[in-house]
Amino acid sequence: MSSSKTVRKLQVVSPVPADIDIANSVEPFHISEIAKELNLSPNHYDLYGKYKAKVLLPVLDELEGAEDGYYVVVGGITPTPLGEGKSTTTVGLCQALGAFLDKKSFTHLIDGAAMSEIFLDNSVDLTTVVTCVRQPSQGPTFGIKGGAAGGGYSQVIPMDEFNLHLTGDIHAITAANNLLAAAIDTRIFHESTQSDKALFNRLCPPNKEGKRSFCDVMFRHLKNLGISKTRPEDLTPQEVKKFARLDIDPNSITWRRVMDINDRFLRKITIGQGPEEKGMVRETGFDISVASEIMAVLALTTSLTDMRERLGRMVIGNSKAGDPITADDLGVGGALTVLMKDAINPTLMQTLEGTPVLVHAGPFANIAHGNSSIVADKIALKLVGPGGFVVTEAGFGADIGTEKFMNIKCRYSGLRPQCAVIVATIRALKMHGGGPEVVAGKPLDHSYVTENVALVEAGCVNLARHISNTKAYGVNVVVAVNMFSTDDETELNAVRNAALAAGAYDAVICTHHAHGGKGAVDLGIAVQKACENVTQQLRFLYPLDISIKEKIEAIARSYGASGVEYSEQAEKQIEMYSRQGFSNQPICMAKTQYSFSHDASKKGAPSGFILPIRDVRASIGAGFIYPLVGTMSTMPGLPTRPCFYDIDLDTSTGNVVGLS
Amino acid sequence: MSSSKTVRKLQVVSPVPADIDIANSVEPFHISEIAKELNLSPNHYDLYGKYKAKVLLPVLDELEGAEDGYYVVVGGITPTPLGEGKSTTTVGLCQALGAFLDKKSFTHLIDGAAMSEIFLDNSVDLTTVVTCVRQPSQGPTFGIKGGAAGGGYSQVIPMDEFNLHLTGDIHAITAANNLLAAAIDTRIFHESTQSDKALFNRLCPPNKEGKRSFCDVMFRHLKNLGISKTRPEDLTPQEVKKFARLDIDPNSITWRRVMDINDRFLRKITIGQGPEEKGMVRETGFDISVASEIMAVLALTTSLTDMRERLGRMVIGNSKAGDPITADDLGVGGALTVLMKDAINPTLMQTLEGTPVLVHAGPFANIAHGNSSIVADKIALKLVGPGGFVVTEAGFGADIGTEKFMNIKCRYSGLRPQCAVIVATIRALKMHGGGPEVVAGKPLDHSYVTENVALVEAGCVNLARHISNTKAYGVNVVVAVNMFSTDDETELNAVRNAALAAGAYDAVICTHHAHGGKGAVDLGIAVQKACENVTQQLRFLYPLDISIKEKIEAIARSYGASGVEYSEQAEKQIEMYSRQGFSNQPICMAKTQYSFSHDASKKGAPSGFILPIRDVRASIGAGFIYPLVGTMSTMPGLPTRPCFYDIDLDTSTGNVVGLS
Repeated sequence: MSSSKTVRKLQVVSPVPADIDIANSVEPFHISEIAKELNLSPNHYDLYGKYKAKVLLPVLDELEGAEDGYYVVVGGITPTPLGEGKSTTTVGLCQALGAFLDKKSFTHLIDGAAMSEIFLDNSVDLTTVVTCVRQPSQGPTFGIKGGAAGGGYSQVIPMDEFNLHLTGDIHAITAANNLLAAAIDTRIFHESTQSDKALFNRLCPPNKEGKRSFCDVMFRHLKNLGISKTRPEDLTPQEVKKFARLDIDPNSITWRRVMDINDRFLRKITIGQGPEEKGMVRETGFDISVASEIMAVLALTTSLTDMRERLGRMVIGNSKAGDPITADDLGVGGALTVLMKDAINPTLMQTLEGTPVLVHAGPFANIAHGNSSIVADKIALKLVGPGGFVVTEAGFGADIGTEKFMNIKCRYSGLRPQCAVIVATIRALKMHGGGPEVVAGKPLDHSYVTENVALVEAGCVNLARHISNTKAYGVNVVVAVNMFSTDDETELNAVRNAALAAGAYDAVICTHHAHGGKGAVDLGIAVQKACENVTQQLRFLYPLDISIKEKIEAIARSYGASGVEYSEQAEKQIEMYSRQGFSNQPICMAKTQYSFSHDASKKGAPSGFILPIRDVRASIGAGFIYPLVGTMSTMPGLPTRPCFYDIDLDTSTGNVVGLS
Repeated sequence: MSSSKTVRKLQVVSPVPADIDIANSVEPFHISEIAKELNLSPNHYDLYGKYKAKVLLPVLDELEGAEDGYYVVVGGITPTPLGEGKSTTTVGLCQALGAFLDKKSFTHLIDGAAMSEIFLDNSVDLTTVVTCVRQPSQGPTFGIKGGAAGGGYSQVIPMDEFNLHLTGDIHAITAANNLLAAAIDTRIFHESTQSDKALFNRLCPPNKEGKRSFCDVMFRHLKNLGISKTRPEDLTPQEVKKFARLDIDPNSITWRRVMDINDRFLRKITIGQGPEEKGMVRETGFDISVASEIMAVLALTTSLTDMRERLGRMVIGNSKAGDPITADDLGVGGALTVLMKDAINPTLMQTLEGTPVLVHAGPFANIAHGNSSIVADKIALKLVGPGGFVVTEAGFGADIGTEKFMNIKCRYSGLRPQCAVIVATIRALKMHGGGPEVVAGKPLDHSYVTENVALVEAGCVNLARHISNTKAYGVNVVVAVNMFSTDDETELNAVRNAALAAGAYDAVICTHHAHGGKGAVDLGIAVQKACENVTQQLRFLYPLDISIKEKIEAIARSYGASGVEYSEQAEKQIEMYSRQGFSNQPICMAKTQYSFSHDASKKGAPSGFILPIRDVRASIGAGFIYPLVGTMSTMPGLPTRPCFYDIDLDTSTGNVVGLS
C-alpha cells in the first residue's frame, strides 16, 4: 500500500531548537504527494493551498468493505500544568511507525545507511500510518499556551497553518453556533410582539395563488409537536398556537454564543440593551468555540445525513411548559448543516518526517469528550489497511480522555482499538509521589531535575491506576515514558518495572522530541506487538440502558470515589432529562484533569472520596449528558503579556515569526 | 492573451428560473482552467477546492511594469429598497465583454452559429475581462436579503460557495477584530490590578540570564510615545509608567466586537459581569463583521507591508490624557497581520459564462467605503492587459459608492478609471418621479408595472445628477438601463434621451438577467468605446490638505446641500482628530443610500437642504474619517421567518437547496 517516496530524513540538531524554527527548516511535501501515498486520487480530496487538503467523505463509501488497520489511542497519566507531551508522543510514534518500520520484515531501519537505502531502493515497504489529531483552538495560540502541533522533532507541519485558520472548520462552527443563538433571541422577541395568527401568517405566508404551505424543516417541528397534518389550513387554532409559538423560557436557555478568542470579558454579559430590543434584556455569555456542542457533533457524527439529524435535534432550552426546544423547532437545522458541510471533511497534513496526519474536530476536553473525529479515524483505518496503524490522541489524562474515547467515541463509531498508549514523564510521576507543586511560568523545584527514585516510585500509583482502568476495556496497554534530558536511568527503570507490574503489555523510553521518529522506534515496535497480540474484546465501563445516576457512579468508581453527591440543581436536571427521554445517553464527565478526583490538589491515586456533582447538562445533538464536577471555565483569558506580543509576519518572506 | 477555451454557452430558459437553479444547472470549469486563461501558472495561486483559488500577491511583483487594461466602475442611481441590479449588471457586462466581444475585429458574436465556431476555432480572440466584486456578508444570506452573486443568467458561481464561507477572509477579519477587542478589555483589567513596576516586569520579563528586552512590537509603541531608548533598564520611572500603562479611557473606546451574523441582541450589551472580572463592567456592542475597520483595511491595502502598518496604527480609543491608542500600543498589530496573511490574496471564481471573477473584501457601504479591494483590481488590470477590461462595482448609489471609489479607493491605489457605468431601472426612476413608496415584501403599485412615461421623465432628474457628478471626475459615463419585462419601449427611450441630454457618453438597454452576456452586448460595446475615447484626467472632488469641514462641505455640495450643520459631538470629534494630526485623511460619508440627502424620503434630486452631521469617527488604519449623517445600523436583525427556513443540504448529493 505504501512506498518510501515521501519519507523525509531529519537532520537532528542538539540542543533542540525552537519548535517554529524546526518547523520552518523543513520544506513540506506537496500534500498531493502525501495523498498519493495513501492511494487517494485527486477526486478524493480538495486542496486548500499546497500543504493542506480536505479528504472528501465519499471516500468512506468507496472503501466500504475494505479491511481496517490497527487502531491505537494515546492517553496520559494525570498531568502537571506543563503537559506531559501527549501530542508530541502521538506524532513521534507515527513518525517511528511510518518512517522507520519495515512492514514486511518487521525490522526497524534506524541507521543512516539504511535510511539512505530507502531513498534509493523502493523495495523497502514502509508501514502505512495515519495520525488523527484534533484541530487546536486559535484562542490559546495568542494567549498563554501557544500552539498544539506537537514539539521538537515530532510536529505536524506547516505548524502555523495547523495552529491558525487551518481549513476553516472552527470558523464554520462559530458561525453555525451563533446563527442558532441569534435565532433564539430573535424568535423570543418576535413572539413577544405578535399574536399567534400574525406569527403563523409570517411563518407560512401565502404564495401568489394565495396558498400556504409548510417548508421541509417545519415538518420536523410538527413531528416534535406530535402533529401529523401536512396542510397549514388544517391546523386547529390550538395547533396553530403550538406550531407558531415556541414559548421559550428565557431562564432555561443553555445555548450560549461562542468565539475562538480568549475573551474573558464575554464570560458573563447582558444582551438586548439597544432601544429597538425594547427592554428584552437577558444575561448570557460566550464560550470558546471549541466548547460549542456543534464541535462535539462534528467529532461524533458519522455521515452528512447523521450530522443533519444531530444538528437539528440539539436542545437549546425548554418551553415554559418544560418541553425541549430544538434547532429544528427554530427552523435552522438545515442552515446549520449547510454551514458545516465542508467542515465534515477531515484535513490532511503531514508530520516533519512526511507521514500523513488527519486533523479533524477539537471538542473541548472539559465539557465535551476531547477526542478527534470519528469520521477521520474511519477514513484513516480504511486507508492504512490491514497491518497499517491509525494513532489518535485522547485529551487530558486517561481517566477522562481515554474513558470518553472508549465509552462515547468508540460506542458511537463501532470501532475497536487494539492498543492504548499511556504517556508518562518522570516529572509528573515525581509530582504524584509527593513532589512540590508544579506551576506554569515558575522554575521547577530541584527535586524535578535531579535523581530521586523514591519520589518516582511513590508516584507510580497514578500510572498503575491508569493502566488497570485502561486494561479493563480489553486493550493492551503500552506505557511511553517521554524522556527529558534530566531524567536518570534508575528513575526510568523504576517506571518500567512499575508499569509491567501493574499489567502493562510493555513500557518503553522515548526520545522523539529530541530525535523524531528514530527516538520512538522502540515504542513503535511495542505498539505493533501489542496490536498483533490483543486477546480480548472491547468492554465498556457501563451499559447505556441504566439510569443516569448509575452511569455517573460507575465512572466515579473508576476515579477511586466511594460515592457520589448530587446538588439540588443536579437532581433537578437528572429528573428533567430522564422525563424528557434522554437518560439513555452516555455520560461525559466535566472534571479537572489534574487529579483522579474533583480536587486538583489530590495527586497520586486518591480513593474513598465522595464525588460532588454540581450540575448536569445535556448535549442532545452530540449525544451525551455532561455532569459538572466543580466549576469548569469555558472561556480562557489573556495574561498581561500574551503570546501575541511575539507573533508577527515577516512581510519580506510572508513567514510567521514568534509562534510557539 | 486569451483564447476561447473557457467560454460556456448558456442555454437560456424563459421565464427565468430561480437563481440557485440556474447556478446548479451549470458545471463550473475547474478553476485552474480559468487561471490558465489569465496566464496564471499553478505557483501563482492556491487552490481552495475545485472552483476557488486564491491568487497570490507576489503575482503583482512579477507583473510590475506590464501595462494595465481598461478600468470600469459600476455605480447606480439612487435605488429603491429592492435594489436595481448593480451586481447583476456588473456580471452581465463582463459576460458580454468576455464571452461575446472579439478583441481584434471589434465585432460581437451573438448568434448561435458564431458561438459554435468559437468552440471549434481558436482563431477568434475573445477580449479578456475580470469582474472584481466584494465578498458578501454571510449574515444577510440567512436573514432577509439572501445571496449577492448577481442573478438570473448573470451570476458568479458556485453561488453557494460565493455566499457562504468562500475562502475564509471574513472569518479571518472576525478573528482579528475580536482578538484586538479582547486585548483592550484585558489590558484595562490588568492595569487596574497592577503597579507600574509589576506591569513593566510582566511586559519585559528577564530571560534566563536575567536580561530584559523589548520585543519588536514594543518599539512601535515606544515610537508612538516619543521614546527612542532601546534598553528597558534605561527607562526612567516616568517612562516606565508611560510605556507600561496605556491608561485607556473606557468611555473613549470606539473599537467594537464583530460577528458575521444578523444578531440584533448584540447591538448593545454589557460585558465583564463575571465574578472574576471584579465589577469592571462596560457597555459596548457587536457590529456585523463587514463593518469592521479591518475589512476596510483589507480593501484599501496595497501590500503585506502596507497592511502590517495599517493594522498596527488602527486607533481603538484614547488614553485618559487624550492621546490615541493603537493596536501596536497594545502589542497586537503583528498577530492581527498573521491572522490576515491569507485574506490579502483575492479569490478567483467564474461567471456563469466562464469569465474570471476576483472576489475580495466587502467593506460595509454604510460606515466604510463599500468597494472591493485595491489589490484585486491591481492584479486584474495587469492580468487583462492592454485592451482588456476590469469591471468593478461600487456599493449603494453613485452619490456614495462612486464618490468613495474615486476619492478614497482611487486616491489610495493611484489607479485611473476610464469609464463609469450608472445602472438605472424604470422602477426606480418612476419612484424618483413621484411614484408611491416602494417597500420590500409588499406588492408594487400599479404605476410601476404599466406604462407611465411622465413619471419616468420626471424621475430622470436623479439620473441626471448622478451623471453630472460622475462626469466631473473626468470619466466617460455610460448609462445601463436594467430592463424588466414590464418596461415599455417609450419609457426606455425617455431614459436614453434624458441620459444623453445630461452628458452621458451613451445609454443602452440591457437584458442580461434574462439572457446572460448576450443581453449586455450593446452595453459592452458602449463601454469599450467609452474607454477608448476618454479625453480627460481623473479629478478628485476635494484635495486632502484642506480641513475636515471643508472636505465634508465639498461632498455635501455634490449631494445638492446648501450647507452643513454639525452637532456639538461632531464639532468635538473634528477638533480632536485635527489636534491628533488626522485631518489629512479622505472623508467617508455614512449616509442613507435612498436619497441624495440625509432624508431617505426625499427622492429625485433634492437641493437647498442643510446636511446634519450627527457625529464624526475615524478609521485611522483604513485611512479615512467618517462623518455620520443620521443613525447608521451596523448590525442587521432577523425577521420572523428568516431565509434560513428554506436552506438545507440535500445529504444524498451534498447540494445546497433553498439559497436565494
